Amino acid sequence: MLEMSLIITNGISALLKPKARLFVESPLGDGLCPDLTPGQAHYLRNVMRMEPGNAVITFNGKDGEWLAEVATLGKKNGSLKLINSIRPQGPEPDIWLLFAPIKKTRIDFLVEKATELGVSSLHPVITKRTIVSRVNLERMKANVLEASEQCERLTLPTLVEPQPLAQTIASWSAERTLYVLDETGNGKTIQQTILDAKGPAALLIGPEGGFAPEELQALLEKPFVTSISLGPRILRADTAAVAALACWQALAGDWQ
Amino acid sequence: MLEMSLIITNGISALLKPKARLFVESPLGDGLCPDLTPGQAHYLRNVMRMEPGNAVITFNGKDGEWLAEVATLGKKNGSLKLINSIRPQGPEPDIWLLFAPIKKTRIDFLVEKATELGVSSLHPVITKRTIVSRVNLERMKANVLEASEQCERLTLPTLVEPQPLAQTIASWSAERTLYVLDETGNGKTIQQTILDAKGPAALLIGPEGGFAPEELQALLEKPFVTSISLGPRILRADTAAVAALACWQALAGDWQ
Repeated sequence: MLEMSLIITNGISALLKPKARLFVESPLGDGLCPDLTPGQAHYLRNVMRMEPGNAVITFNGKDGEWLAEVATLGKKNGSLKLINSIRPQGPEPDIWLLFAPIKKTRIDFLVEKATELGVSSLHPVITKRTIVSRVNLERMKANVLEASEQCERLTLPTLVEPQPLAQTIASWSAERTLYVLDETGNGKTIQQTILDAKGPAALLIGPEGGFAPEELQALLEKPFVTSISLGPRILRADTAAVAALACWQALAGDWQ
Repeated sequence: MLEMSLIITNGISALLKPKARLFVESPLGDGLCPDLTPGQAHYLRNVMRMEPGNAVITFNGKDGEWLAEVATLGKKNGSLKLINSIRPQGPEPDIWLLFAPIKKTRIDFLVEKATELGVSSLHPVITKRTIVSRVNLERMKANVLEASEQCERLTLPTLVEPQPLAQTIASWSAERTLYVLDETGNGKTIQQTILDAKGPAALLIGPEGGFAPEELQALLEKPFVTSISLGPRILRADTAAVAALACWQALAGDWQ
């Protein structure tokens, strides 16, 4: 595995690295032949200029990562033939990201980065000052898929339907720590807070306008909430999300 | 100052917060009247719909942050009248970011985020596998300025002319630790590495294709270089830059 990972990542043997990595819905196992979606067939044929016999890597979020070859490839359909498993499915960090929807390009960016940084689920939450009401889940799904294939993770983050923040909090399970990014500067430092933490966690990023005071107050009264600060500068919502996720992975996640 | 900072950041008294924060080149002091650039005059007049007497916040990177009012405002010129200092100039973290130029929208993003995250200087470096040759410093400068005004920092990060990586390394001063983001997965974990660190630091992010093996080897041989890893997933260059900066601020910078 390490050797394969080196081949894939250090570029020495770029030729040995299949040019395409695809997520499929169907089970993966010796000799199985998962179908390609029309989009995947188009991508392999017209973008990657592939033919039957070319190597690709595939994963489905359950059965690890597999080396495969293109078995059939038409304009709108095709299939893979699985050759061998190259990485087993393993445990992944349990870290949720709750965020107030923001402008289109910034949400694209946030979703891509959060996926690369190993977020396990994405929860758009509507706060009192949330300006963007409509959330394009299909667009989020496409960004999640592309980033998951590109960053070589073995799962896709779960996309959760948008929900009012109050509702999300009302149904919260107490064993998951909710870290609220408190832009008033009154939060604890992220380093010690997260170093001391154990178990499943979630990060909540407010809207560009910040939380309403009564909203923040209601959050801070919950036993499962810890407010954290990301320093003296005012961070945009997307910056705060990426920064907090990176710190969590470094201090409590799989970067240790 | 804390009170002012609360007023500015927690949104309770949004009315008390001047709607515009501008960087000026000239000295700031009691009763001084810095000129506005044509762009700033246009912004205050036509975008913010301001008039003489309206409050703005200003900073110049040297004399702290000042409350000011619009003194004169024409179509292409204008001036401010400084009222009082609201934040003294203080020390800031000493953290450089060296990065191989990437595609336009990603470099816009990287520059904005690095500025919000308190980077002290931005160094485009040309590596063996750098694909993007041209660096638009004017565009970077505009992004740095906008992000600095928005995130309420008191300085602008320094923009350094692009340079071949080998040349940057050849003229390196040994007391600054250079953290190389090693995508081969062989680097140390960022948490312990940076927690143990002291003094000025720099982060080096390779190009999308990664460092050439001989290039990485040459870096790792330098006494001032420490290679660090950002976990098992393959991060895009812009993601790695933002993630590493956030971790550095949390562990060694002004988020402590």
